[in-house]
Amino acid sequence: MNTSNLLQLDEFLQQCRQRVNQRLAVALDAEIASATLLEAMRYACLGGGKRIRPVLAYGSALAVGGELAAADNAAAAIELIHSYSLVHDDLPAMDDDDLRRGKPTVHKAFDEATAILVGDALQSLAFQILSADPVAQENVLEARNRLAMVQLLSQSAGATGMVGGQSLDFEAVGLELNIQQLEQMHSLKTGALIRCAVLLGGLSCESTSDSQMAALAAYADNIGLAFQVQDDILDVTSDTSQLGKPQGSDSDKNKPTYVSVLGLDEATALANSLSDKAIAALQEFPASANPLRELAAFVVSRLH
Amino acid sequence: MNTSNLLQLDEFLQQCRQRVNQRLAVALDAEIASATLLEAMRYACLGGGKRIRPVLAYGSALAVGGELAAADNAAAAIELIHSYSLVHDDLPAMDDDDLRRGKPTVHKAFDEATAILVGDALQSLAFQILSADPVAQENVLEARNRLAMVQLLSQSAGATGMVGGQSLDFEAVGLELNIQQLEQMHSLKTGALIRCAVLLGGLSCESTSDSQMAALAAYADNIGLAFQVQDDILDVTSDTSQLGKPQGSDSDKNKPTYVSVLGLDEATALANSLSDKAIAALQEFPASANPLRELAAFVVSRLH
Repeated sequence: MNTSNLLQLDEFLQQCRQRVNQRLAVALDAEIASATLLEAMRYACLGGGKRIRPVLAYGSALAVGGELAAADNAAAAIELIHSYSLVHDDLPAMDDDDLRRGKPTVHKAFDEATAILVGDALQSLAFQILSADPVAQENVLEARNRLAMVQLLSQSAGATGMVGGQSLDFEAVGLELNIQQLEQMHSLKTGALIRCAVLLGGLSCESTSDSQMAALAAYADNIGLAFQVQDDILDVTSDTSQLGKPQGSDSDKNKPTYVSVLGLDEATALANSLSDKAIAALQEFPASANPLRELAAFVVSRLH
Repeated sequence: MNTSNLLQLDEFLQQCRQRVNQRLAVALDAEIASATLLEAMRYACLGGGKRIRPVLAYGSALAVGGELAAADNAAAAIELIHSYSLVHDDLPAMDDDDLRRGKPTVHKAFDEATAILVGDALQSLAFQILSADPVAQENVLEARNRLAMVQLLSQSAGATGMVGGQSLDFEAVGLELNIQQLEQMHSLKTGALIRCAVLLGGLSCESTSDSQMAALAAYADNIGLAFQVQDDILDVTSDTSQLGKPQGSDSDKNKPTYVSVLGLDEATALANSLSDKAIAALQEFPASANPLRELAAFVVSRLH
């Protein structure tokens, strides 16, 4: 990526993060009887994070000619699902991690019961935002589109998506997976939510055509896998302060990774090739898809 | 309740259970990559249970002149939320229970990580069912109604409902609550989902009026509280084999209950008075609301 593209992307990323953080702050400023629960939910969601999934939803809304505001609810909902999954993933019975985004994980800062409830409540909140009463909103999508968003998010988050992938990941501990098995696991565990983010952006504009949705899906599948391969690469090449979690924490657990299966060089080549394919999938889109194109390059060049 | 009413109610209960079990079996027969996850989800949902919430949804659909089939998805969705909450509630970091419905709890029969993921996946599945593609369904409700169902279920399940109540419950361990604080906690922890079940039944019929919804809400609030008071009574008066969980398991944990706050006699009087109020709230409804009326009497006469 050249410097000018990087500067433009940086501005876009900042704008997206600001929008989604604002929407999340409103959602997490609700009347909630349990003060501890609300505090822990805010701790889990408002303390930073790259907001990659919201950025993809916004980028995709722009690509199909929509406005950023139309994707605010979708962006917040997908980030809530991602945040809940991190809180549950970090639990002692799961990955047992103490650090997340450079801070103590929710069960460390609060306790395990609170962390379980926080995750559960964040998942509900995602669906609450997607189905929110249109009267209170500036940008009203048709009920049919919003229902399609609920359907897509629930499929992508649950047993047929992210949670299914997490379960496969557990089943794989100590096993030697081949590249196809590894791809299946990651296409669910990480890919399903990335794909969902991109498609939610497409659904946030009522004029999006089926062929546009298909192109966005192809983009999303490639960028999703690229994202995971790069994560595995960073797990062995970055240090703890850059990652915000202990370096090597995945490889330590004897989980198969792209680097352990392919080696570092081949994994890097794969990440770059997937990024190129993602960009190629957008060829029919005008310049409004440039943020998505730049994101595809960014995903494989990021350092954390 | 006289014998003839009990027989009619029993037939209605069986019909409802059959319908919702059938809908749940279809939903849990999906293509899911992780065999362990699917098995554990089925274990958590298909192994019995009173199906009180589905029965309320069906009863309410009948009361407003709808058909049972129109409430199938709502009934299954509310039971999935209830089932997920039981799986997470039983976890060692939460109530740490080994038995549920007379069987080992999910984290005992499988493991903790699986139990966490099962709960997460069941919650997603609830929203997936409510928003399912209408093409595949016999009874198509308008998108607007189904979106309202998603909104209601997410509000009732999350931090503003059930999960908020569970968090308050944890904050209350070892404290002496007064009757108002106890009511607030239970109106969220148990009441929100019972209210939701009744209102989902109302929403499953497109002609339901606002005043009908208000009457159903009043019915639901009273029956929800009655249900909880009766649970507390049964916790000290029933034995383990009837309850399917260790007798006295709530009072042992030093959690305040209606019996510990009011004493057994006053708690029984309260349960009966709430049941009467629930029935009174239905006075404008025709005979189609009889199952709801009989349920209100049943809730405070049940032995487990």
